[in-house]
Amino acid sequence: MTTQVIVLNGGSSSGKSGIARCLQAVLPDPWLAFGVDTLIQAMPLALQMSATGIEFGPDGEVVVGPEFRTLEAAWITGIAAMARAGARIVIDEAFLGGAASQQRWQDALGALRVLWVGVRCDAAVAAGREMARGDRVTGMAAAQAELVHQGVFYDLQVDTTHTEALECARTIAARVP
Amino acid sequence: MTTQVIVLNGGSSSGKSGIARCLQAVLPDPWLAFGVDTLIQAMPLALQMSATGIEFGPDGEVVVGPEFRTLEAAWITGIAAMARAGARIVIDEAFLGGAASQQRWQDALGALRVLWVGVRCDAAVAAGREMARGDRVTGMAAAQAELVHQGVFYDLQVDTTHTEALECARTIAARVP
Amino acid sequence: MTTQVIVLNGGSSSGKSGIARCLQAVLPDPWLAFGVDTLIQAMPLALQMSATGIEFGPDGEVVVGPEFRTLEAAWITGIAAMARAGARIVIDEAFLGGAASQQRWQDALGALRVLWVGVRCDAAVAAGREMARGDRVTGMAAAQAELVHQGVFYDLQVDTTHTEALECARTIAARVP
Amino acid sequence: MTTQVIVLNGGSSSGKSGIARCLQAVLPDPWLAFGVDTLIQAMPLALQMSATGIEFGPDGEVVVGPEFRTLEAAWITGIAAMARAGARIVIDEAFLGGAASQQRWQDALGALRVLWVGVRCDAAVAAGREMARGDRVTGMAAAQAELVHQGVFYDLQVDTTHTEALECARTIAARVP
Repeated sequence: MTTQVIVLNGGSSSGKSGIARCLQAVLPDPWLAFGVDTLIQAMPLALQMSATGIEFGPDGEVVVGPEFRTLEAAWITGIAAMARAGARIVIDEAFLGGAASQQRWQDALGALRVLWVGVRCDAAVAAGREMARGDRVTGMAAAQAELVHQGVFYDLQVDTTHTEALECARTIAARVP
Repeated sequence: MTTQVIVLNGGSSSGKSGIARCLQAVLPDPWLAFGVDTLIQAMPLALQMSATGIEFGPDGEVVVGPEFRTLEAAWITGIAAMARAGARIVIDEAFLGGAASQQRWQDALGALRVLWVGVRCDAAVAAGREMARGDRVTGMAAAQAELVHQGVFYDLQVDTTHTEALECARTIAARVP
Repeated sequence: MTTQVIVLNGGSSSGKSGIARCLQAVLPDPWLAFGVDTLIQAMPLALQMSATGIEFGPDGEVVVGPEFRTLEAAWITGIAAMARAGARIVIDEAFLGGAASQQRWQDALGALRVLWVGVRCDAAVAAGREMARGDRVTGMAAAQAELVHQGVFYDLQVDTTHTEALECARTIAARVP
Repeated sequence: MTTQVIVLNGGSSSGKSGIARCLQAVLPDPWLAFGVDTLIQAMPLALQMSATGIEFGPDGEVVVGPEFRTLEAAWITGIAAMARAGARIVIDEAFLGGAASQQRWQDALGALRVLWVGVRCDAAVAAGREMARGDRVTGMAAAQAELVHQGVFYDLQVDTTHTEALECARTIAARVP
């Protein structure tokens, strides 16, 4: 039976979004790609910069508050409903809560056929790519490189340290029947 | 009973997104804002520029193909599920199919309490704002100004021709119990 | 003799960039448009967020440091050189230093034929538009609405409070021989 | 004597902009970074999509027209003037005309001390990164990979195929006295 949802989990600047776009290009069917950035952009500006929403600390740590969590839970439920309604979906995530974050998605996705993919990248390399991207919040790449994988299980892992996004995408696509 | 979903329907450059952001700022609770742009950005690049996906004609007309429609249907179902899961949601839409487009949303939203808002803007004024925004696709504002309202019913209409987005948002917010 | 440089000076969210884009569309010759945002984006990320570069205070005030000033001086010299080399140029600026800011441009532009345009917008209206744009730094519109015009002379003033960008652009274009 | 201008020349998606941002981070003094994208964004929308301005063909080839060339010549003169006025500048370019493009810059930069850097990237790898970036115009990476280096001389070459942008930047920075 065919995969309905691909979850890419990796730290900031690990290359998840690039892999998601390549997956959309190499997979024969059309897939929708959503990330945590899609959710953040949908939030009120006030929540994007507050203790009840999401905050970015000076060293790149991300603190997520209760109102963010409430909206995120509904967001996850909705994405699962899209998949049940027939859309194939690539999710681009950073499990800041490790196993607990994965559990939230697993509960919502239920009986959907999910391919869990870990996107690894050496912390120093990811930090260099963060610098090259010119993102406003520096330090996230290093802070998240190991954190997001703690206690998380995968069907497949890729590592962008020495492998291009397109090649990672092809490896993943080969596992999508 | 409180409103759970606000649907803003208006042509391109009529000011819907600005009203949505102002609504998020003036409403006391946190609301998520999604638009058709969110869906388009989630699609594969190939669908964003093809006859089966979405195409932008030389005069600003938008042609939507069968694969776009399939993914859009799942998207609408998912947004409705988010609202049922407790997230308050502002939807920023251009009903290119008029009444038929509204029907699709209405079927999905079901028993949710929806405030249907028409966002009007004089076609020539919208075309001028399109020029000021510097969007790549010109002509959409004029092409859609009347088209998107055909056969659509509203609880409330606002007109951005002579009224600021924030004032429109306040008018709408006053109708959200 | 024909105008070689148009300087649009106005506060944040007063509508300068929109007028600049409309000017580019309505003027018969091709004009280049540059703004202070072009300069900021060209700076190192570290300068974009530091006391020696540029800082955005909690109430939207902008503090510009010595290293920013040094690079800005070279930038102004270079833009003037582009105009002398034959490019027609629209400059989109916010004279945070009022008359002193204008003097810096005037010294660099020298004998070039310049049209100085003040772009006014009611502070409350500009603040509402800032909210509608969803900019990260709020308060700049209100903080700058009067500040940037102090001691500045103009050939022409436009007011976007009740006039569309395109109409303002046409008024300005009519003064460009 | 110290370097005043660094010119990075490479094909689309070869990683020039990332190297430029890393250079700004690792070099001790503040450097401004400008690219051909800065110029294109400054042009009227009409020139960005026309035979007299710039056009993007179906296979990623770029055709530059006479009005683009005229404005570009003034742009180059202006950037050189910024450097003479004391700003250190990183230029991020794609010499579509090979040696002739370099000659245009060389004539304008005159006696300024320039470090000419070739940014190489294997065409297939660059094409994969173009896909990962999700750029609208596909094919530019492959079309430009060799083209932009024809007849161009360098003080130094880097290759992003197997080397990170930050490491390339450090190699370049080591040559800036």
